[in-house]
Amino acid sequence: MIATLAGGVGGARFLDGLVQANGAENVTAVVNTADDFELFGLRICPDLDTVLYTLAGLANPVLGWGIADDTRATLDGIAAFGEEPWFLLGDRDFATHILRTSWLREGALLSEVTDQFRRRLSVSTPVIPMTNDRVGTTIETPGGWIDFQDYFVRRRQQDDVIGVSFVGIEEAHPTPAALEAVQRAEMIVLAPSNPIVSIGPILAIDEFHRAISDRTAPAIASSPLIGGKALKGPADKMMETLGHESTAVGVARLYEGLIDGFVIDHVDAEQAAEIEELGIAVLVTDAIMHDIADRGRLAREVVAFGESLHVKASA
Amino acid sequence: MIATLAGGVGGARFLDGLVQANGAENVTAVVNTADDFELFGLRICPDLDTVLYTLAGLANPVLGWGIADDTRATLDGIAAFGEEPWFLLGDRDFATHILRTSWLREGALLSEVTDQFRRRLSVSTPVIPMTNDRVGTTIETPGGWIDFQDYFVRRRQQDDVIGVSFVGIEEAHPTPAALEAVQRAEMIVLAPSNPIVSIGPILAIDEFHRAISDRTAPAIASSPLIGGKALKGPADKMMETLGHESTAVGVARLYEGLIDGFVIDHVDAEQAAEIEELGIAVLVTDAIMHDIADRGRLAREVVAFGESLHVKASA
Repeated sequence: MIATLAGGVGGARFLDGLVQANGAENVTAVVNTADDFELFGLRICPDLDTVLYTLAGLANPVLGWGIADDTRATLDGIAAFGEEPWFLLGDRDFATHILRTSWLREGALLSEVTDQFRRRLSVSTPVIPMTNDRVGTTIETPGGWIDFQDYFVRRRQQDDVIGVSFVGIEEAHPTPAALEAVQRAEMIVLAPSNPIVSIGPILAIDEFHRAISDRTAPAIASSPLIGGKALKGPADKMMETLGHESTAVGVARLYEGLIDGFVIDHVDAEQAAEIEELGIAVLVTDAIMHDIADRGRLAREVVAFGESLHVKASA
Repeated sequence: MIATLAGGVGGARFLDGLVQANGAENVTAVVNTADDFELFGLRICPDLDTVLYTLAGLANPVLGWGIADDTRATLDGIAAFGEEPWFLLGDRDFATHILRTSWLREGALLSEVTDQFRRRLSVSTPVIPMTNDRVGTTIETPGGWIDFQDYFVRRRQQDDVIGVSFVGIEEAHPTPAALEAVQRAEMIVLAPSNPIVSIGPILAIDEFHRAISDRTAPAIASSPLIGGKALKGPADKMMETLGHESTAVGVARLYEGLIDGFVIDHVDAEQAAEIEELGIAVLVTDAIMHDIADRGRLAREVVAFGESLHVKASA
């Protein structure tokens, strides 16, 4: 069984590849919830939804998030009432948020709600929120601290990120099934998601960090930066303004002690030696998922690479 | 100023006529909330919404409720998740329920929320929920007690109604602005809504009953039964199974002591004498609103009739 830590679009697509390569039941998704938020009184879980929609084959193929061919009459209605429709939610997508909010208010745990959606969408892969506790992400910009989605969506990542805080992370505990998946995994894979705001919150929960530090199974990450650029999202710019190197090496340093192998793209081949100096084995390949079928190709390479590795002694 | 007690579709159309006849600012709508309920965690207020949508010119012209040309992708999404879509909600309509629920949870009163919608829909007529307290309607059928919307929508009014209970009505108090509108009105009008489940709950709130019993302004009702039949909804059948006469006279008896005049249709002209024996003046006219313009005609006749009446001494 492969336990995968994942954020939104990139993580979801990579998970889809792992499912193609290994079978749906042999992959467990542990998904970031630190960018969850409330909008119009509804609980929105962008990463969980993106993972579920992607694994269900429903995701908008161009955007990566939202549901394919969704309409937006409800949001238009909300806008017609004078509310700013700054976060795009389709009509089908609203169904998810309405039901989730309703079930949570009735007392269900987020993990239970997510599992309901998983079953109703006929997704066989366990998809587990990293925690059932509320965690939020706030972003420090030169203008002050703002909510993550404010930074990410409303302000289109235009601000320099000079600090990141996961509010509530110290009191948050892993969803038991997620922690167990990581502890019992035959391989741990960090998806090519944003290392700061997608993988970062999962690793910031003490029990996950310890479980991965103390692993006996190999742990592999696939670089989200290729040629110093993020394929999607602000990971590159964010790395830079936070004082990290915006390169594959920079990401590998963030994961030092937590991974045994790192998958980088051919364009970054010259960084392999520097990454290996960190005690991390390197696979140089085509690290871009060019289309849906190609997700499986990258996943197969990552898994074969992981199987070839011995776990380093933990610190 | 005319204070109007109203339920859903029939009441909303009649209110529209009063607005046409008297000007938007000269009419206040006091609207039933006893059939409000929660669905998918959202607060639905069918009568308030029908009144607002109708006065805003947005209502579905055929159904009378919902928004014209609305789509139903969100409800389809909810159904795709396996939930029964027994209560039809359009996408634009969902916007109302989402925002209302959100504002109520933030602590706003229903009257404040309703006034927000009124202003955002550019409706000039004050539209006031009868109460800010939660009241529910339950229906006794031969099979037992069921929730009103279960009876009304899900089971399509197929059950005999042998009892009606307004849960919470004893503890409910009028919205201050609604009570004041009734107390200060130059005329009180009971719309041709269901006398049992639409007008009934308003009159079941003690302060409203007393204010109308003690009125100094004339009070008029327009019969919702014409030729013994309700133009819409189950009022006729409900009257019968509850032991009332399913006629204009039967409705007049329910309103005895609370109205000075009653408007009935030509087909019921022979009942005029019996109604007058109750101490209620009668106007016989065409009591059907045949189209949108015709709503104004009926309203003008009702208002002129009211202006011609002296208020009887209250009991």
